[in-house]
Amino acid sequence: MAKRRTNLPPGVLEPREAVLRMAPYSPPTSGRADKLRLDFNENTVGASPAVIDFLKEQLSSAGLAVYPEYSAAKRDLAAFFNVDADEFVMTNGTDEAIQVLINTYVDDNDEVIVLAPSYAMYRFYAEVAGARVREIPYLPEKLAFPVDELLGAINENTRAVLIANPNNPTGTGTTRAVIESILDRATNAAVLVDEAYYEFCGVTALPLLNDYPNLFVSRTFSKVYGMAAMRLGCLFSQSGNTEFLHKAQSPYSVNSIAALAARAAIRDTAYIRKYVTEVLAARELLYFEFEQMGIEYYPSQANFVLFRAGDRAIPIRDELRRRGVLVRDRSYEIAGCVRVTCGTRDQIRRFIEELKSIW
Amino acid sequence: MAKRRTNLPPGVLEPREAVLRMAPYSPPTSGRADKLRLDFNENTVGASPAVIDFLKEQLSSAGLAVYPEYSAAKRDLAAFFNVDADEFVMTNGTDEAIQVLINTYVDDNDEVIVLAPSYAMYRFYAEVAGARVREIPYLPEKLAFPVDELLGAINENTRAVLIANPNNPTGTGTTRAVIESILDRATNAAVLVDEAYYEFCGVTALPLLNDYPNLFVSRTFSKVYGMAAMRLGCLFSQSGNTEFLHKAQSPYSVNSIAALAARAAIRDTAYIRKYVTEVLAARELLYFEFEQMGIEYYPSQANFVLFRAGDRAIPIRDELRRRGVLVRDRSYEIAGCVRVTCGTRDQIRRFIEELKSIW
Repeated sequence: MAKRRTNLPPGVLEPREAVLRMAPYSPPTSGRADKLRLDFNENTVGASPAVIDFLKEQLSSAGLAVYPEYSAAKRDLAAFFNVDADEFVMTNGTDEAIQVLINTYVDDNDEVIVLAPSYAMYRFYAEVAGARVREIPYLPEKLAFPVDELLGAINENTRAVLIANPNNPTGTGTTRAVIESILDRATNAAVLVDEAYYEFCGVTALPLLNDYPNLFVSRTFSKVYGMAAMRLGCLFSQSGNTEFLHKAQSPYSVNSIAALAARAAIRDTAYIRKYVTEVLAARELLYFEFEQMGIEYYPSQANFVLFRAGDRAIPIRDELRRRGVLVRDRSYEIAGCVRVTCGTRDQIRRFIEELKSIW
Repeated sequence: MAKRRTNLPPGVLEPREAVLRMAPYSPPTSGRADKLRLDFNENTVGASPAVIDFLKEQLSSAGLAVYPEYSAAKRDLAAFFNVDADEFVMTNGTDEAIQVLINTYVDDNDEVIVLAPSYAMYRFYAEVAGARVREIPYLPEKLAFPVDELLGAINENTRAVLIANPNNPTGTGTTRAVIESILDRATNAAVLVDEAYYEFCGVTALPLLNDYPNLFVSRTFSKVYGMAAMRLGCLFSQSGNTEFLHKAQSPYSVNSIAALAARAAIRDTAYIRKYVTEVLAARELLYFEFEQMGIEYYPSQANFVLFRAGDRAIPIRDELRRRGVLVRDRSYEIAGCVRVTCGTRDQIRRFIEELKSIW
């Protein structure tokens, strides 16, 4: 028998070193249903009612038994995103988009660049793949995008660059010109631009798809579309690349209900526009209230805002939770910072009211 | 820039060698909805109506917006499978169970043993992970489980053994004693026993869980439960192992609708028992008809049967399709063989009628 490399308890099968090295599993939060959920940047009012109507109309006992077929959803989504059907793959949330990209392009010990702080799953899947992960910090000043530092870090061995625009949890975004400079430099790498919060900022790299064979753009139905429960994302790239993405992906990773729901969701764009307008107004209201209270915050391009609670970040998070309002502590990444999702103005008023009572 | 290893068209980003080596992507079949689907071993009548009722009652616009929470489903499933909640992980179909197991235990260039022919995703995920895959053929005589050959192939470098019991597409099964002999020998490997068709044969390795830290058992809701559209599987192992499986898995890979549906499905066990009884009767009918027609077949432990169509396997598959009956050609794996799913007796009568008209 091969020698054990670790001191695991007897009887536990030894996992890969890459898995041993990873941070311990932190279970997804539960018990959120009855609270004001300003902690996961979800749509805080829900999916379009048209989605529910369509699902209730389409769901059938016989239909559930059939392995997913995607042709109708792919046709509708291609038209909606103004791409060809072979210029994207549907994924089990953005998480699978990241995983498929890594599995397609990144070998054991390859170099992957991520920014910090950013969405945790970039590092997660890179580590599962055994990659060497290099982190470039956001700039201390205004948590701005570290353009020069990132460009300087990219070299011929860089196999993937994984960025979010706008970024989570900083809320800060960058321009299409900066994305182009990254694409121009990282010619040997898969460059992922995760646009989970695109609808709140309007900046997208999608029109660059034809010009850059190293560009991958992801979108999600988990945020503004209010469909986080269903797990659906899209990963866009040139058709020469999606062919390989398909090869590294299970043929049925997206469930049929998500594919159905997406078709209804993109028909009701008025609902999305209205929700975005409300969130942007709520964000302005939040800024105003923070300023009144003398609370420092980072202006955001997305549906969430980081604010400074100093040493009290965790107690404030906990006290708000006791009062039925959920926010996310991010002080482990950015000293003293808490992240709050912008829902409606009424929800922000409720949040401010509770915050004032404990501040 | 690093040297290109291949002659890809200019402008296509070069994927990993492991992905390049993989067989080309074959798109999932579509246009199955209006036909008699005896090609994917699904439940051919549908999920329990109680599942649909529960979903229609529970689905809400607000609920769709929330990231999945699994505690209720985990509690119910643990009770149903008679395990502790920390002795399994829920997965996005069996496919993700295979992937998570591989990602947790199999490194680049590690050795993985699979049987052939068997479920294609074992080799698929092992190849994505860059493993060296060793195939042990089923025995020519009756497509029996190759016990001695498999035991002989396992050595201290074997990191995973992936088997299905009963096996797809052969339909042949093995005993719990054989599974134990594999577990006794493969002490350094993760041994997956994929029990996707368990309900049709009744043999399970699940009671061995406490005795073998190298045992992993998978179950699915895609077959007898009639929920292939929703993507839900379970991967069982000792809690010391599931901790590592969790580390290598996205926290939200299972959609909420599947978790809801499963809770309703396991409450309606009468529906499942009735369907299994019907399928077993249909399988007997099928055997009888094959014998009447002088068609050779392999007796099966599952809800499908391989039969010999000789040189005409593909034309017969195509002609049946034209007549609205879908079956799967497997002649690329087992010379001259076609696989037909056992649905109800009425469905098998329809199949036999069409087959007779073209035989």
